[in-house]
Amino acid sequence: MKCYGKTFVVDTSKSPYAKLRSVPVENVQLEDSFWLPRISTLHEKTLPSQHRIFEETGRIFNFQRVSGKKKGEFKGLYFNDSDVYKWVEAAAFALANKKSDELYKLVRQTLSEILSAQDCDGYLNTYFSFEKKKERWSNLRDMHELYCAGHFIQAAIAYYRAIGEKEVLDAACRLADHINKIFGPNGRTGTPGHPEIEMALVELYRLTGMKEYLELAKFFIDNRGKGLIGGNPYHIDHKPFRELEEIVGHAVRSVYLNCGATDIYMETGEKALLDALLRLWHSMTEHKMYVTGGIGSLYTGESFGMDYDLPNVTAYAETCAAIANVMWNWRMLLATGEARFADVMELALYNGVLAGISLDGEKYFYVNPLADRGTHRRQRWFRCACCPPNIARMLASIPGYIYSLSSKGVWIHLYVQSRAYLDIHGISVDLFQKTRYPWNGEIEIQVQPEEEATFSIYLRIPGWCRRPRVFINEEAAKQPIKPGEYLEIQRLWKPGDRIKLTLPMLVERTVCHPYVMENHDRVALKRGPLVYCVEQIDNPEFDVWALVLPPNSRLEARWDPAVLNGVVVISGEAYAVDMKHGRELYRVEDRSHIEMHKVRFTAIPYFAWANRNQGSMTVWIRSLISA
Amino acid sequence: MKCYGKTFVVDTSKSPYAKLRSVPVENVQLEDSFWLPRISTLHEKTLPSQHRIFEETGRIFNFQRVSGKKKGEFKGLYFNDSDVYKWVEAAAFALANKKSDELYKLVRQTLSEILSAQDCDGYLNTYFSFEKKKERWSNLRDMHELYCAGHFIQAAIAYYRAIGEKEVLDAACRLADHINKIFGPNGRTGTPGHPEIEMALVELYRLTGMKEYLELAKFFIDNRGKGLIGGNPYHIDHKPFRELEEIVGHAVRSVYLNCGATDIYMETGEKALLDALLRLWHSMTEHKMYVTGGIGSLYTGESFGMDYDLPNVTAYAETCAAIANVMWNWRMLLATGEARFADVMELALYNGVLAGISLDGEKYFYVNPLADRGTHRRQRWFRCACCPPNIARMLASIPGYIYSLSSKGVWIHLYVQSRAYLDIHGISVDLFQKTRYPWNGEIEIQVQPEEEATFSIYLRIPGWCRRPRVFINEEAAKQPIKPGEYLEIQRLWKPGDRIKLTLPMLVERTVCHPYVMENHDRVALKRGPLVYCVEQIDNPEFDVWALVLPPNSRLEARWDPAVLNGVVVISGEAYAVDMKHGRELYRVEDRSHIEMHKVRFTAIPYFAWANRNQGSMTVWIRSLISA
Repeated sequence: MKCYGKTFVVDTSKSPYAKLRSVPVENVQLEDSFWLPRISTLHEKTLPSQHRIFEETGRIFNFQRVSGKKKGEFKGLYFNDSDVYKWVEAAAFALANKKSDELYKLVRQTLSEILSAQDCDGYLNTYFSFEKKKERWSNLRDMHELYCAGHFIQAAIAYYRAIGEKEVLDAACRLADHINKIFGPNGRTGTPGHPEIEMALVELYRLTGMKEYLELAKFFIDNRGKGLIGGNPYHIDHKPFRELEEIVGHAVRSVYLNCGATDIYMETGEKALLDALLRLWHSMTEHKMYVTGGIGSLYTGESFGMDYDLPNVTAYAETCAAIANVMWNWRMLLATGEARFADVMELALYNGVLAGISLDGEKYFYVNPLADRGTHRRQRWFRCACCPPNIARMLASIPGYIYSLSSKGVWIHLYVQSRAYLDIHGISVDLFQKTRYPWNGEIEIQVQPEEEATFSIYLRIPGWCRRPRVFINEEAAKQPIKPGEYLEIQRLWKPGDRIKLTLPMLVERTVCHPYVMENHDRVALKRGPLVYCVEQIDNPEFDVWALVLPPNSRLEARWDPAVLNGVVVISGEAYAVDMKHGRELYRVEDRSHIEMHKVRFTAIPYFAWANRNQGSMTVWIRSLISA
Repeated sequence: MKCYGKTFVVDTSKSPYAKLRSVPVENVQLEDSFWLPRISTLHEKTLPSQHRIFEETGRIFNFQRVSGKKKGEFKGLYFNDSDVYKWVEAAAFALANKKSDELYKLVRQTLSEILSAQDCDGYLNTYFSFEKKKERWSNLRDMHELYCAGHFIQAAIAYYRAIGEKEVLDAACRLADHINKIFGPNGRTGTPGHPEIEMALVELYRLTGMKEYLELAKFFIDNRGKGLIGGNPYHIDHKPFRELEEIVGHAVRSVYLNCGATDIYMETGEKALLDALLRLWHSMTEHKMYVTGGIGSLYTGESFGMDYDLPNVTAYAETCAAIANVMWNWRMLLATGEARFADVMELALYNGVLAGISLDGEKYFYVNPLADRGTHRRQRWFRCACCPPNIARMLASIPGYIYSLSSKGVWIHLYVQSRAYLDIHGISVDLFQKTRYPWNGEIEIQVQPEEEATFSIYLRIPGWCRRPRVFINEEAAKQPIKPGEYLEIQRLWKPGDRIKLTLPMLVERTVCHPYVMENHDRVALKRGPLVYCVEQIDNPEFDVWALVLPPNSRLEARWDPAVLNGVVVISGEAYAVDMKHGRELYRVEDRSHIEMHKVRFTAIPYFAWANRNQGSMTVWIRSLISA
């Protein structure tokens, strides 16, 4: 038997109510031209540059100050420790996938600084030290102590799984034990203002088998809706969790909370939790999610809006919220094995999340509008810098989201050219995916079991796909192939067996629910998992906000290696209407001045916008209607 | 010489830098079928019902508690006194226009309760009494003490002008003197978190001639931008007033502040103030005002949004903000005599303001969306009840906004069937307007000087009008008649002279600046000063959000006495598109299912929406574009 890694993104291998078990990051080697270059950039640019900024902004200093190595005032925001933890987690995933002495040294050194700042009682938070020590655990709603603790625990778990050094994990257990001494059925009551620790504690339980961590996570969920943190929807404290109907509040908090609740469900099987989660999922996907998978439409409170409140220009759609959306749908997928969760996960990952980082890997969006007049640009950093290290850990862990295992076999969620080394009931099975996905929907999967074996391969047939085709060793699959479901292929697999999956990638005109008034008479172009936008730089002859796509315009997709490091662009014939208008906000329509002229337009994937010269952009394009 | 009233809305008769002087409310007797029935409803329903609610909600009790008449805790919000003051001001204007013993008794009794609650040092605020007394003037930013004081002073001025009893005015002066002892060049520094007192103090200066009140108002303006109240744009404290470029912050605060600054300008002539005011006016009208004259588009902070951020469904557009818009433009008009301010004033009055009250005069909108799915309805009251008494005082003072005087003659701003009794250079001139405005643009003005006299009559030619015509005694006016300007008719006026003004009221299709993405390919119907909307109840055969107006659809305007107490409805042929869509937010466009069928539609004035059965509504209607 080969030696497999253990750097799971979420380890459900012993979770009694999870349908699927995940596959460690180490076991999947990317060989593609989409994600692999991004992960290389992560190694070479993103992670080193983020660490440099940690040094520059006092984030490392804060730990050194507490350990006594340096003197001075605490620097930055009170939850800045969490950025460092997320970076450690990202680096751990990165190291699991690709060894690097340099990166290892940087992480080890960072962890030394962190660990030196831990109190002997297990407490760890550089803000609440010295004169602030007496304020520890006094304001769970606002001060993000449990949030920071959760991120440290997650970082420690990823590091332990990737590197195998137990010291950091022990520190995380000491912190968790410390929290468990203070809170819980026998301690103080409470629940965090910013959820995060719930999923961390469940994962720590999965790793250590210590049931009290699971119980503490459940305790925090059970304490919601009691008014302990103000009773407001913003904090998702207005109702007990199991009674929630509508997804509300700060989007990242809301969806991190759902992640924790899903993790608890996978351990306890409590139906009331799953029922609530499904209601929240419907509320989100049917009323409150952008076509990009972005969530949390409002600037106010970085929160979910009312149903159908999805403005384009003033979309908030925080990068962290799209990441949370991936994390939650991943957990729902593990819990249920249902493809609808993989569909949302893929959508958010390729669009809402990926737009959050520049092609050069060193600039970030916090806010992700769906239309812009050229003023919104990625920044090198933010004072509140939750998004940059969060996108780093998401990118670093991509190999862990491609496959899962179940009692019957292997599930393929994402199509990425890669080699996977799997253990199916004790039999080594290598899977080689050959594909240019997401640019092309032709996927060839070579199945290489160490010996002939009967098991199932579940192919995800994306919900966006029409007329998918599957061949096994040149022979068409016999069962119906349904988009939005997994196709189970159970057979005696022999070394060298080949699956050929064709997911035709048509350029699709997507329309929005008519209750979103802003998107009336507009279409968004999609192709495969990618949402497209028109950006000014590609369309110098007209204002992209003036573009009107007639219904029967032929739309072509074409690989262009010269654009944005190589993307498939969509182009076609359309019209541009007159955008002339004076300074006045309103004027009487002057029919004699309405002009519309034929133009050729080019659209690019949304994730790649704002990487070139400034200019307008829109995802939703006016579409021609005529009587 | 006849005896004229003195209940000015703003008394600029001695203001050296005002172009125009206003005409007291008493001097204009409405005889129309638009405003007069509303003012009757105000007398019969609105004012009595509001007073009843004051009794029910403890607003009167709060005064009785401080005077020792009753015992118990302060009830409601800390600024609830201001609602009572606004009501007194409304009642004073109402009494100026139409005597009523019953209303007079109610006001007098209310004023007794108020005056009994005033401290011997002049202080008046029922929240800051007893145990809260030590907190007086300790938090100018949040506690609305100066705001409440401003409203008391305005109420007292209006009451004194209307009724002539000096006791209440003396109380207002005592309060102003008390404030002047505490603040000002020789006292404490400070500026109010909620502007209001500035215009009250200037008006008190105008009435009493006491210059310290004007200086104190200027002191409060001069103190902005120094960080005394936090330095935030929300409070318009981020910059010195004279350096402001963009209108920002809480809309009512922002525009009340501009009212105060305009009042100060009219007394001091300071150019830097006027320059700032003009910049703010351009910022508002060119980037941040709804087509209804509503302002403050954001729920967040009830504030102005970024440029072109004017959502329809989630419009905030507080009724008080539209009222503030009228008040500010009125002052700018008095200061400059420029018709553009009258245009905005009229627009906001007939649309943004008037939508704030139900036809029965007892229900109110706080928030005024421009599109709705049938859930937004007027309420009998609000916990924060600033809007109901504010709209009452606006309606009660309407007769005062119709005319002004200048050194050369009389200015007609609004067209309303009415009789006005004016004093032009010591000569009594009666003006009788005969018109069905706003339903019809035919206006006949009979000029009745007590003797032949040479003076000018300035007719406002509204900016919305095309091809206006003016006849004097059947003879066409010779000078060019320009919409958006005043037409000066200077001549020897004889008793019985007649002006015939025709402002053709076409149904106009209004388009919006293309930077407001939500209004792309939409038109708003306007006719005369009125903005129209389509409401579901008038259009049972299709969803009003699905209505598409083709460019050449003939639109008819027709008086319908059966609808909404009689309104001019607009109707025509149009199309309705398919609104069928599943639960899903997004789906692939299915061209074979797009249906569009011919319909007849009916539109009603926006101000009258939501007075019948619940249903959808939109101001901006999809408009057909075709290549």
